[in-house]
Amino acid sequence: MKLLEERILRDGKVYAGDVLKVDRFLNHQIDVEFLCELGKEFHRLFGNCGVNKILTVEASGIGVACLTAQYFHCPVVFAKKSKTSNIGAELWAAQAHSYTHGTDNTLVVSKEYLGKTDRVLILDDFLANGCAANAMLSLCEQAGAKVVGVGTVIEKAYQKGGDGLRAHGVRVEALARIAAMSPTDGIRFCD
Amino acid sequence: MKLLEERILRDGKVYAGDVLKVDRFLNHQIDVEFLCELGKEFHRLFGNCGVNKILTVEASGIGVACLTAQYFHCPVVFAKKSKTSNIGAELWAAQAHSYTHGTDNTLVVSKEYLGKTDRVLILDDFLANGCAANAMLSLCEQAGAKVVGVGTVIEKAYQKGGDGLRAHGVRVEALARIAAMSPTDGIRFCD
Repeated sequence: MKLLEERILRDGKVYAGDVLKVDRFLNHQIDVEFLCELGKEFHRLFGNCGVNKILTVEASGIGVACLTAQYFHCPVVFAKKSKTSNIGAELWAAQAHSYTHGTDNTLVVSKEYLGKTDRVLILDDFLANGCAANAMLSLCEQAGAKVVGVGTVIEKAYQKGGDGLRAHGVRVEALARIAAMSPTDGIRFCD
Repeated sequence: MKLLEERILRDGKVYAGDVLKVDRFLNHQIDVEFLCELGKEFHRLFGNCGVNKILTVEASGIGVACLTAQYFHCPVVFAKKSKTSNIGAELWAAQAHSYTHGTDNTLVVSKEYLGKTDRVLILDDFLANGCAANAMLSLCEQAGAKVVGVGTVIEKAYQKGGDGLRAHGVRVEALARIAAMSPTDGIRFCD
């Protein structure tokens, strides 16, 4: 998505340690009208898939999920990060390691809000190693929900997450795919 | 707001320990179209105040803040909860105790995204003892930003947060004000 690539080049900052900061518009300050344009693009891609629920994970996925859900006329469910592995019987739970924060989280969703009748679009701001996406896929699998695909605003395509999902037959759509980045050479997008 | 009171009566559940669960539509599953109606109401209340930024706190404030911001045509900034009090020079920081989780958090916002030119509407899903709202007010004060008011979806009016803010001259608007609640007697709203 050209508009997004331009915005990343304008506002994104690359730091050592494989960090792309896009907190000017995506995950600290949120440019709501811009994210609506991203939401329309997700709807163009997945609008004919019968999506009746969007699943994301707190915190930075919630904005893009809510603004996108308007075009699907469906609710959002956000998985919560639990520090405890002592999970009640009323929750679906899956492990996710965060490389960003160096922590292990258990992602949980109430069984009330994810079930067999759901056709789910999984959305997040970033897809890199795929830990969060895989955990959300596991939640859907446990719930017997159908996953129509995974949408991400930005994919670090040089990491294994996106292609790993695709190799397992999951439809993955990224609005911007980064082929390489570094503090010195900047950002190069996939063709 | 009648529509909201009806929804709370229909979908809310009161548990011992002063807990009102509204996670069917507000803070786990998000009824996006319903929250847009709440956003329109916030805009009716604060639309003439020159708001150019909405400040909330992760995670459950983000949905209502983003969906509301569309009517104000302004960005959202969400404060992050930091476990460490070792805060960098580039951040505004304020302490907030969470009675819900029994934890102390430091709320932080990048100095880049909150400053003297901002006219801020503070939004959150709940207002009870006022800890989060007071911390966000402190962030704005440190930044030299003007706070036009505090909006909350639900106020537990029998707790001191809302009236404490009002006593300090802060405009507080709650879309539903709970006068009393208990697992046995249910929910009673303020007149």
